[in-house]
Amino acid sequence: MLPIAIDVMSGDHEPREYVDGALRALSEDPELRALLVGEPRLISAALATLPAAVRERASVVAATQVVTMQEKPREAIRHKKDSSMRVAVDQVHGGQASGCVSAGNTGALTAIAHFVLRTLPGVERAAIISAIPAAHGLTHMLDLGANTKATPEQLRQFAAMGAIVARDVYGVATPRIGLLNIGEEDMKGHEVVQAAHALLTPSGLNYVGFVEGDDIFSGDVDVVVTDGFTGNVALKTMEGVAGLIADRLRREFQVSLFDRLAGLIARPVLRRAAAGLDPRRYNGACMVGLTGIVVKSHGRADGIAFARAIGTAALAVRRGLTSHIAQALHAQGAAN
Amino acid sequence: MLPIAIDVMSGDHEPREYVDGALRALSEDPELRALLVGEPRLISAALATLPAAVRERASVVAATQVVTMQEKPREAIRHKKDSSMRVAVDQVHGGQASGCVSAGNTGALTAIAHFVLRTLPGVERAAIISAIPAAHGLTHMLDLGANTKATPEQLRQFAAMGAIVARDVYGVATPRIGLLNIGEEDMKGHEVVQAAHALLTPSGLNYVGFVEGDDIFSGDVDVVVTDGFTGNVALKTMEGVAGLIADRLRREFQVSLFDRLAGLIARPVLRRAAAGLDPRRYNGACMVGLTGIVVKSHGRADGIAFARAIGTAALAVRRGLTSHIAQALHAQGAAN
Repeated sequence: MLPIAIDVMSGDHEPREYVDGALRALSEDPELRALLVGEPRLISAALATLPAAVRERASVVAATQVVTMQEKPREAIRHKKDSSMRVAVDQVHGGQASGCVSAGNTGALTAIAHFVLRTLPGVERAAIISAIPAAHGLTHMLDLGANTKATPEQLRQFAAMGAIVARDVYGVATPRIGLLNIGEEDMKGHEVVQAAHALLTPSGLNYVGFVEGDDIFSGDVDVVVTDGFTGNVALKTMEGVAGLIADRLRREFQVSLFDRLAGLIARPVLRRAAAGLDPRRYNGACMVGLTGIVVKSHGRADGIAFARAIGTAALAVRRGLTSHIAQALHAQGAAN
Repeated sequence: MLPIAIDVMSGDHEPREYVDGALRALSEDPELRALLVGEPRLISAALATLPAAVRERASVVAATQVVTMQEKPREAIRHKKDSSMRVAVDQVHGGQASGCVSAGNTGALTAIAHFVLRTLPGVERAAIISAIPAAHGLTHMLDLGANTKATPEQLRQFAAMGAIVARDVYGVATPRIGLLNIGEEDMKGHEVVQAAHALLTPSGLNYVGFVEGDDIFSGDVDVVVTDGFTGNVALKTMEGVAGLIADRLRREFQVSLFDRLAGLIARPVLRRAAAGLDPRRYNGACMVGLTGIVVKSHGRADGIAFARAIGTAALAVRRGLTSHIAQALHAQGAAN
């Protein structure tokens, strides 16, 4: 496998956090090689502390600019040609890397990825997909924010790509696909979901129909398809609810001495429950539909979570995600 | 205060559950009077078991039909003129009731409410608003599903109505209003939120700009405005996440004997945390912008939750919500 190009400069944290994440990923996966893209002195200093067996799998690729979290996508394409984000994507395009990872500005990353890598034949727009913990196993949801809206045909393409991710990356034999709506009855929803429903029903995909927001977690579907606006709102809403519940629990376990004691006793159980739902475990959303693998890490991801995003990129590369999507979408395009 | 008309026949449960909820609301609120709308024998039998002081505040209004959960809104208007839902709304329109509550089909209730009660001057479409627990106090979010989409002007009207609910029903002096989007930067999002942003910025409302899904719970805004599609997905997503976390906790506290013991010890604390977030406490979403109060209870609401929805209707009536909205929207309409 070619190395993964890692943008260590972009995101809400200092570059140090992302460098740490990259080194963690290299230590965890002995087959992984990495191109660390950014400020060379900073990266080299961090690499120097590593055991030789890890260090020799990492190279530095210099980039003099950084795309900020506020940068407009168009400006990033025009004026940040030597940014760590752009250079990381360029490594994939140039064939030096098999995939890339960035915790930077989603809009800029989406724009640069489309501009440099282009979409696969049969794909109009790439979508961002992520695994989300559900009652049984995982649900794969897309689009989580690559696009602010989607046409019915684009939603059909997202469904096809989501099915490939669930099947070929996560091993779900025949992924059940649901279209996110505000009711499960056939006549519900606005005209875009109605038209997408009409396209998906005869599509040959294992399409089970409309699902609602709570079905993301029910385990009754493997893939949930929606536009990037709704998907991103749902994703941030999940984070908000989980944070609120965690805060309430923490606060209630502090009220009295008895509560603190109860908290100490319950801690191993609470930790176990939290670990299964820890968003860091599921960090790394894949941009699918491009000619190469691009993984978006959460901007607030710490080193542990960033390492997971790199792992997601490596998994997608190893499972041949790009070529599987290319084959499937090409076959569908030819059939239409 | 005129009585509240209560549709006891519609929803996912047997009518008995909603009758119980109505009786509970009557017991809890000694000033409340109720018109129980539905099958008279069933209601009378339940009323007979009540103390006279409660019973005398309840009357029965007969309705021979029921709107099903699958019924299309248009069909419900045309063919269910003697349904419990329609008769309950008719009581408000006819002046026999000050407001009404139903746990039935949201689409049908929205359609019937618009058809019978009409919107207030200056309001194009009613919206569904509900209180949602946040880090500090409550966030009021609308539209939660009365409409499948919204124009920029309708979003502006939702913002104005949301501010009235937060201020005049819940006592927030100067409610901070956020517009739900997929980023906080001014240029983010599709053209509808962009145009709504342009309308809200000079609106005279205390508009703080774009917010993201996690801000629903941050306590940083009092009112979150969005279209009914996105709002409903976000609401169902909240329910799904909360259910998933509760299930995981329950399961982890069952794994070993030690875990069960820890669970017993932690139970009072967990119960307290759960009580503050219990969706039943916040049941009852108000349809705002009509000439009368219509409250939508969750279809799966049990008696306790249904009683809370009735309480929400009574509160909205007592605080004069309809006339406050009428004044505010009329004043804004005149100013435009």
